[in-house]
Amino acid sequence: MSTTFFDDLPSIRFEGTDSENDLAYRWYDKDRLVMGKRMEDHLRFAVCMWHTFCWPGSDVFGAGTFDRPWHAGANDAAAARTKREAALAFVEKLDLPFYCFHDVDVMADAETIGDFRASFAEAVDHLEELQGQHGRRLLWGTANLFSHPRYMAGGATNPDPEVYAWAASQVRDCLEATHRLGGQNYVLWGGREGYETILNTEIGTEMDNFGRFLNLVVDHKHRIGFDGAILIEPKPHEPTKHQYDFDTQSVYAFLKRYGLEDEVKVNIEANHATLAGHAFEHELAMARTLGILGSVDANRGDPQNGWDTDQFPNSVEEWTLAMLEWLRAGGFTTGGFNFDAKVRRQSIDPQDLMLGHIGGVDTIARGLLNAEKLLSDGKLEAFREERYAGWQDDLGQMIHAPDTSLADIADHAVKADLAPQRKSGRQEWCENIVNRV
Amino acid sequence: MSTTFFDDLPSIRFEGTDSENDLAYRWYDKDRLVMGKRMEDHLRFAVCMWHTFCWPGSDVFGAGTFDRPWHAGANDAAAARTKREAALAFVEKLDLPFYCFHDVDVMADAETIGDFRASFAEAVDHLEELQGQHGRRLLWGTANLFSHPRYMAGGATNPDPEVYAWAASQVRDCLEATHRLGGQNYVLWGGREGYETILNTEIGTEMDNFGRFLNLVVDHKHRIGFDGAILIEPKPHEPTKHQYDFDTQSVYAFLKRYGLEDEVKVNIEANHATLAGHAFEHELAMARTLGILGSVDANRGDPQNGWDTDQFPNSVEEWTLAMLEWLRAGGFTTGGFNFDAKVRRQSIDPQDLMLGHIGGVDTIARGLLNAEKLLSDGKLEAFREERYAGWQDDLGQMIHAPDTSLADIADHAVKADLAPQRKSGRQEWCENIVNRV
Amino acid sequence: MSTTFFDDLPSIRFEGTDSENDLAYRWYDKDRLVMGKRMEDHLRFAVCMWHTFCWPGSDVFGAGTFDRPWHAGANDAAAARTKREAALAFVEKLDLPFYCFHDVDVMADAETIGDFRASFAEAVDHLEELQGQHGRRLLWGTANLFSHPRYMAGGATNPDPEVYAWAASQVRDCLEATHRLGGQNYVLWGGREGYETILNTEIGTEMDNFGRFLNLVVDHKHRIGFDGAILIEPKPHEPTKHQYDFDTQSVYAFLKRYGLEDEVKVNIEANHATLAGHAFEHELAMARTLGILGSVDANRGDPQNGWDTDQFPNSVEEWTLAMLEWLRAGGFTTGGFNFDAKVRRQSIDPQDLMLGHIGGVDTIARGLLNAEKLLSDGKLEAFREERYAGWQDDLGQMIHAPDTSLADIADHAVKADLAPQRKSGRQEWCENIVNRV
Amino acid sequence: MSTTFFDDLPSIRFEGTDSENDLAYRWYDKDRLVMGKRMEDHLRFAVCMWHTFCWPGSDVFGAGTFDRPWHAGANDAAAARTKREAALAFVEKLDLPFYCFHDVDVMADAETIGDFRASFAEAVDHLEELQGQHGRRLLWGTANLFSHPRYMAGGATNPDPEVYAWAASQVRDCLEATHRLGGQNYVLWGGREGYETILNTEIGTEMDNFGRFLNLVVDHKHRIGFDGAILIEPKPHEPTKHQYDFDTQSVYAFLKRYGLEDEVKVNIEANHATLAGHAFEHELAMARTLGILGSVDANRGDPQNGWDTDQFPNSVEEWTLAMLEWLRAGGFTTGGFNFDAKVRRQSIDPQDLMLGHIGGVDTIARGLLNAEKLLSDGKLEAFREERYAGWQDDLGQMIHAPDTSLADIADHAVKADLAPQRKSGRQEWCENIVNRV
Repeated sequence: MSTTFFDDLPSIRFEGTDSENDLAYRWYDKDRLVMGKRMEDHLRFAVCMWHTFCWPGSDVFGAGTFDRPWHAGANDAAAARTKREAALAFVEKLDLPFYCFHDVDVMADAETIGDFRASFAEAVDHLEELQGQHGRRLLWGTANLFSHPRYMAGGATNPDPEVYAWAASQVRDCLEATHRLGGQNYVLWGGREGYETILNTEIGTEMDNFGRFLNLVVDHKHRIGFDGAILIEPKPHEPTKHQYDFDTQSVYAFLKRYGLEDEVKVNIEANHATLAGHAFEHELAMARTLGILGSVDANRGDPQNGWDTDQFPNSVEEWTLAMLEWLRAGGFTTGGFNFDAKVRRQSIDPQDLMLGHIGGVDTIARGLLNAEKLLSDGKLEAFREERYAGWQDDLGQMIHAPDTSLADIADHAVKADLAPQRKSGRQEWCENIVNRV
Repeated sequence: MSTTFFDDLPSIRFEGTDSENDLAYRWYDKDRLVMGKRMEDHLRFAVCMWHTFCWPGSDVFGAGTFDRPWHAGANDAAAARTKREAALAFVEKLDLPFYCFHDVDVMADAETIGDFRASFAEAVDHLEELQGQHGRRLLWGTANLFSHPRYMAGGATNPDPEVYAWAASQVRDCLEATHRLGGQNYVLWGGREGYETILNTEIGTEMDNFGRFLNLVVDHKHRIGFDGAILIEPKPHEPTKHQYDFDTQSVYAFLKRYGLEDEVKVNIEANHATLAGHAFEHELAMARTLGILGSVDANRGDPQNGWDTDQFPNSVEEWTLAMLEWLRAGGFTTGGFNFDAKVRRQSIDPQDLMLGHIGGVDTIARGLLNAEKLLSDGKLEAFREERYAGWQDDLGQMIHAPDTSLADIADHAVKADLAPQRKSGRQEWCENIVNRV
Repeated sequence: MSTTFFDDLPSIRFEGTDSENDLAYRWYDKDRLVMGKRMEDHLRFAVCMWHTFCWPGSDVFGAGTFDRPWHAGANDAAAARTKREAALAFVEKLDLPFYCFHDVDVMADAETIGDFRASFAEAVDHLEELQGQHGRRLLWGTANLFSHPRYMAGGATNPDPEVYAWAASQVRDCLEATHRLGGQNYVLWGGREGYETILNTEIGTEMDNFGRFLNLVVDHKHRIGFDGAILIEPKPHEPTKHQYDFDTQSVYAFLKRYGLEDEVKVNIEANHATLAGHAFEHELAMARTLGILGSVDANRGDPQNGWDTDQFPNSVEEWTLAMLEWLRAGGFTTGGFNFDAKVRRQSIDPQDLMLGHIGGVDTIARGLLNAEKLLSDGKLEAFREERYAGWQDDLGQMIHAPDTSLADIADHAVKADLAPQRKSGRQEWCENIVNRV
Repeated sequence: MSTTFFDDLPSIRFEGTDSENDLAYRWYDKDRLVMGKRMEDHLRFAVCMWHTFCWPGSDVFGAGTFDRPWHAGANDAAAARTKREAALAFVEKLDLPFYCFHDVDVMADAETIGDFRASFAEAVDHLEELQGQHGRRLLWGTANLFSHPRYMAGGATNPDPEVYAWAASQVRDCLEATHRLGGQNYVLWGGREGYETILNTEIGTEMDNFGRFLNLVVDHKHRIGFDGAILIEPKPHEPTKHQYDFDTQSVYAFLKRYGLEDEVKVNIEANHATLAGHAFEHELAMARTLGILGSVDANRGDPQNGWDTDQFPNSVEEWTLAMLEWLRAGGFTTGGFNFDAKVRRQSIDPQDLMLGHIGGVDTIARGLLNAEKLLSDGKLEAFREERYAGWQDDLGQMIHAPDTSLADIADHAVKADLAPQRKSGRQEWCENIVNRV
C-alpha cells in the first residue's frame, strides 16, 4: 500500500463543525445514530471508479489535465493494476464503505472477446484481494456498453445482433463478477440505448430487443443465485439525442410492458433527473410511489447548463428534500449513495479528489440530519395528513368502494349541492418550515 | 346565420399554389386522394372553441385585446349563444369537418352545480341544432377541471373528495353530451393534476385517486354505450410545477398501473411534446409503438420560450416527420388534428383567425404529401429495413427463441469470436432524402 | 387604519431562531450591525404593490382565487383607495421600510388620457398621506407600459408614435410622482419592448426609438431635480418572444450605444437572470464589474419551469453567493431589495402573504450574515487574490504597459521558453468553504 | 493527389432537383445569378478543418469511431501532412472555394513553444503550396487557445500572465500566417474565456485582460498590414459554465467598453445562437443592426439537447429567415458561410462527410433563393414599412427633433387626447407569406 499514488494524502475522519481542517468530515459522523441506525448504514456511500480514477480531465474541447501515473502510457495490465491499487487505497482513506465500477474501468484494454474476458478476469481476482486488504465492499458493478466503437449504435438496442451478443457476454461476466465480489446490486445504464436520429431507428424493434435483454439478465441472476438488485439508471439525453429510459416513469412503463416491475428497480442520478425536467426529489418520490426505488447516483448538474456536469453534491437544501423522500421510502435495502461525480477539469491536485468527496459526504449527511429533524418535528407530516384527511371520511371511502360508479359520485355531488370550501395549500409555510432546519 | 360576427369573412376554398389570395388553401385539397384516401378523411381537422372563440387575447402581463362582441359584458346565456353561433359558422367557412370544446367554453357562467348543469344542457341542445345547420361534427369534448378556483389544487387529484365529486359530475355530463352530439372521442386533460410543491403533496394518494377516476370514466363510457375513444393529453409542466401525465411514456406507465392500457389512448399535443424534452415526431412514434396513439393537438411552441405558446403549426419540415410517423401508424381511427392553437395577442382582426387556420391546414397538408412521397419513394424504409435485417437471420432468431438464455448468447459470442463490423448510421443521407421532398 | 383587510394579522418582529412562532423573523434583526451598518439599512426591503395587492390569483389556465375585497367589483376609485390603505398597513405590519408601485397598481381604471392623469394624481395624493401615517417610504415607482391593450406592440418601441407619446405622458407623470413621494429610484421595465415575431419587426428602428426615449427620461429627471437613479430591469423573454433588454450585458451595450452608461443602472431580478441562462450571482457580478448595479428584485424561479414563476426567495445558498457579490460591490446607494414575488395561487389566506415575505426576508438576511462570515474569514478572498497575483508581477505589468505590443509579449514568451505551471482552480475547496458558513 | 484518403469519392457538381444522384448538388448552382451576384460569390462556403478532418468521432462517453489513416498513430509531421493533403483535396472535390483552420488542426503536436512555432511554420508552407495546387482559399484562421491543458483556465483571461504570453505568441503567428495565406478574416473564439465557478474568478480582471488582448491583436493587424476582418465568435456556455462573449449584444458591450466597435465584428454560429436563447435569425438581425455582422458558422443544434451538437444545417425554413436578414444586411464583405459542423459519430464512411456538406450547401442555397423571392415579391417589406410609417409623419419627426423634451411629447399626448388605434401585427399572415416560397 505504501506505493500508491495517494500515499501523501491523509485519512479522513470526523472532526465536527468547529474543525479548521479542510480534510475532515464536519457532519458525517459514521457511528452517530439517526432514527435508530448508524449514519454509515443509512448512507452506504460509494466511490465510483470511472470519474475519480479513469477520467483524465478531458472534455469535448480539450485534452486531459490530470497527471495520474496510469494515464502516462497505454492502459495495459500494469497500468490497470496500479490504478486498482490506488483506487481501493483512496476509498479506504476516505473511510467510505463501498466502491462501484464498469468492467472497462478496472481492466486493461482488450480488443478480441477472448482477451477482453481474460483481462477482466484478472482484474476481478485482484479486486477480490484488494477488497480484503482495504476492508472495502462493492456496491454495484456494471458493464460498459457505450464507450467502445462497437457500441456506437447501442448495446441491447443495436441493429446488429452480433453486438447484442457481445453485450450479453460482457453482462454475463460482469454480473457473475459482481456476484463473486459480494456486490449488492447490478446496474444497467443505457447510454446508447436510444437514437441519434429517429429517421434511421425502429424504436419498437429496439425496445423489444431491450426488453428481451433485460428478461435474460434477470433470468441469469436467478440461475447464478445472485440476490442483489438489478437496477436501471434513467437518463433522458446524452450521449444520444434521446434515450428510452428517459426517467423513472418511462422506466416503469418499460418494466410493466416487459413484465419486470417486480424484478428491476431504478438507480436515480440527481443530474439525470434535472436533465429530464424533474427535481431530484421528484424522481425519488415517484420511484418510492411506484415501488422501484433502488439506489442513488449522488451528484449535481448546473441549472444553467444543458449537459451532464456530474459535479459533487453541494446543496444541503436540495439534499434535505431528497433525504426526506428517502426516509419516507424507508431508506435503502441493497442500494446506497454512489458518487457519480467528478472534480472539475481544473482541479488537478489529488487533494481535490478528496475535497470533492468530503463536500459531497457532508452535504448528504446534513441533508439526512435535516430530514430527521423535519420528520421528528412532525409539522410537515401533520399538515400533509390533514390535507388529505377527507379521503378517510365517508365521501372518500364511498368513492373508492368497489361498486361505486361515476354516476353514483356525480349524483351525490348534485344532490348534496356540493360547494367545496377552498383551503390554502400553504406552500410558503411549508418552505419556511423546511428552511428552519 | 346572417348575423354572426364572422359574416364579412369569405368561405375558404382550395385554389392551388399559384393563387395570390391570402384567404385560400394552397395545399389542402380535401378531395385529393392520398394513399387511397381523401385528404379530408385523412386529416380530420378540428377547430377548437377555447383559443379561437373564448380567449380574449389576454396574457399574464396584459388584458384582452380582441373586441369580440361576446366579450363585451358578462358571459351570460345570450353571450354564450352568440359565441356558439359565431363559432359553428366560422368552422363552416373554413370548410373543416370538426370542432372540439370544453364544457365551460360553450356555456354561460354558473356557480352552483345545479345552474352549471342547466347552463351546459342548454348549450348542448343548441350545439346539436347548430351542428345540423352548419354540417359540422364534434371531434371531441372535454370537461374543464382547471379554470374554476375550486380546481386550484386539481380535479381528480384534489385533496378534497368534494372537488373530486364535482369533477365526476362535470365529466359525467360532458361525456354524455359528447356521446349525444356524435363526438368521436372524449378527452381528459389534467392541467392541475400534478403539484405546485411536492412538500404538501402525496403523489401516491393523488395518482391512486386519478387511476380510480379514470377507471370510473371508462366504466361509464361502456355503460352509456359510447364507442368513441377515451384520451389523455400529456403535458409536463404548466400551469403547475409538475403534472403526472408528463409525456406518452408516463401516461403508458399510468395506464398499465391501473389496468387501462387497452381502454385509453393519448391525445398528443405538439407543444406539450417539446416542453417535455421530446421532438413531436418522437411522441408520435412512441405512442405508435405502445399502441396508444389516439388523436393530435396540432400547434407549435417556440424553441426559445419555455411555456406553452400554442402557435399555429407553420413548419412543413416538422410536420413531414410527424406525418411519416402518423402514416406508419396507419392514420387515425377516431382521432383527428385539432388546432389547439391561438393567434398572437396582436392579431386582433377576425381575418387573423382565418389566416392562422389556413397556415396550419396547409402546413399539415404539405407534411402529408411529403410523407406520402417518402413512403412511395421507399428509400428511407428500405434503409431502415436493411439496418435491422440481422434480426431476421439465425442469430437474431436464436436470441428471441423462448428457451435461449443469456449464457447461450454469450457463449455464442465467445465461440464465434464475434468482431461485429460497424456500419454507418447514414444520418446525413437520411436527412438529405427527407429534404428532397 | 382599523378598517383595513389585514387587521387580523399581527405585526411581525424579530424573535430569533428559537421562536416557534410562524409569524416572526428568525434572522432579520433590523438593528443588528453587519460590517458596521444596521441590517435594515443594508437590505432596504420593499414590498411590491402588484403581486401582493393587485394580482387576484389568476393564471393563464384559471381565474383568480384570492377573495380580496377590492377584487369584488370594478377597480374604481373606492376600490383603489381601499387597496392602498390595506397595502401600506400591511407593509407597516411587516416592519419593512419601503414599497414599490406601477402607476396602474395604485389607481382606479381610466380610459382617456385625461381621466388617467386625474386618477393617478388622486392616488398620489393619498399615498403621500399614507406614507406619513404608516411611516413607510417609496423605493421606486414605474409606469406600466405593457398591460393595457394600447401597449400590445410595446411602449417606447411601439410602431405607432401615438402610443409612444402616451407612454411619454405616463412616464412623465410617474417620474414626477416618484420624485414628489420621495422615491429613491425610477425604474423602466420593458415587458413589451421586444417582439413577438421578427418578421414584422425592425429592431433597428425600435432600439433607436427606445434609446431616444431613455435619453428624454434622463433629461427630464435632471430638469425636475430628481436625484434618484434611473434603472432598467432586464428580462430575456415573456411576455414577448424576445425583449431587447435581455440581460445586464445587453443593457450595458444599449446604454453605451446611446451614451447613457453614466446615467442609467440595472435593477436585476433573480428570476429574470435565470431565465436568461445566468446564475443570479453572475448578473450581480457582471453589473458590479460594469459599474451599473442599481437595485434588486428579490424573487426566484423554478429551475424546471421556463417561465417567470416569481416565487419568494427561499434558498439561503443562492443568496449567500448573491450577497457576497453585493457586499463586494459596496452595497446599495439608492437601491434596495424589492420583493417582486407572489404567493402561490393556492395560498389564498392573507396570512400566506405574510409567510411569503417572512421567508424571503429571513432568507436574504441569512445570506447577508453568511456573506459577512465569508468576507471576515477571508479564505476565499485570499485565494482569489493569490490566483491573480501574477498580474502584479513583472510580466503582468509589462503586458498592460501602454507601449507594449503583441509582438513584445510573444517575443518574451519565445525567448523565455515559457512553460506555464498549471495550478488547481480548487473549485471543490471553494464550494466547501462556502458550505461551512 | 492520387494518394489522398478521399480518392474514391467523386467530385460534386450541380445536377438540379431532378437528379437521383446522392452525391450532387440540387440547389447550389454556383454560377446562377441571385440579385445580380453569382451564388458562389454570395455564399462563400468554407469547409472547416477541425470537425471534418481532425475529430476522430469521439464523444464524452466513447472513443473515436472514424478510421482515418492519420488517426492511426501519433499526430506527427507525417500524419499532419497526410491530413492536410486529404483536406484540401476534399474541399476541391466539393468544389467549395474556402477552408478554415485552427493552428493546431493543421500541424503536428508540439510541446515547447519553439517546437510549436516550427511545426506550425512547416504546416503553413505546405498549406500555401496546397492552396495553389487545389485552387482553394483561406476564409479565416484562428489560434486554438482552449484544447491544450495549459489553457484549462483560459487564454487571454487566464489568471497566469505566462499563459497569456503563450496565447500572444500563438495568435501573433496565426494572424501572420492567415495574412500570408491570403486569409480574409481572423477569428478569436473564447472557448475558455469565462469561468467554471464564479467563486474563484474575478471577472473584472479577466475582462480587462481580454480587452487588452483584443486591442493588441487589432494593433498587430494594422502593423502587419492585414486588411481582413478581426472577428469574435460568441458562445454562451460550454466548455465552461459561462463565457464572457455570451451573444452578439454581449460582444458589442465588450467592444464598446474597450473602444473596439469599429475594429472587430462577430462570427455568428447558428448553434451558439440557440444555446444563448436566441433564434439564429435574431443574432443576425442584431449584428446587422449594431453594424458588426462579419461572418457565419453554419451548423445547427438540436432543440431538445442542451449542448453544442454542431450538426450540418438541414432546415430550409430556418435558413430562409436567416438569409432574409443576411440579404437585408447587404451580404458578406470578407465573411462567408463556414461549415462548423460534424457528421454524426455513427456516420463513419468518408462519403458521409460529403453527404453532410451537400445537405448543408443545398439547405443554405435554398434559403438564399427563398429569401430572394421574398424580397422581390416585396409583400413582407411593404408591410414592415407601412407598420412603421408613423415615424416619417409629424409626430414621429417631432419626437426625434433634437430640442423636443419628454414634456413636449407628453403635453402633445394630453392636448391631442390621443387614443391610438390598435392595428393587427399580422404575424400569421407574415408566416404564411414566408411559407409560400
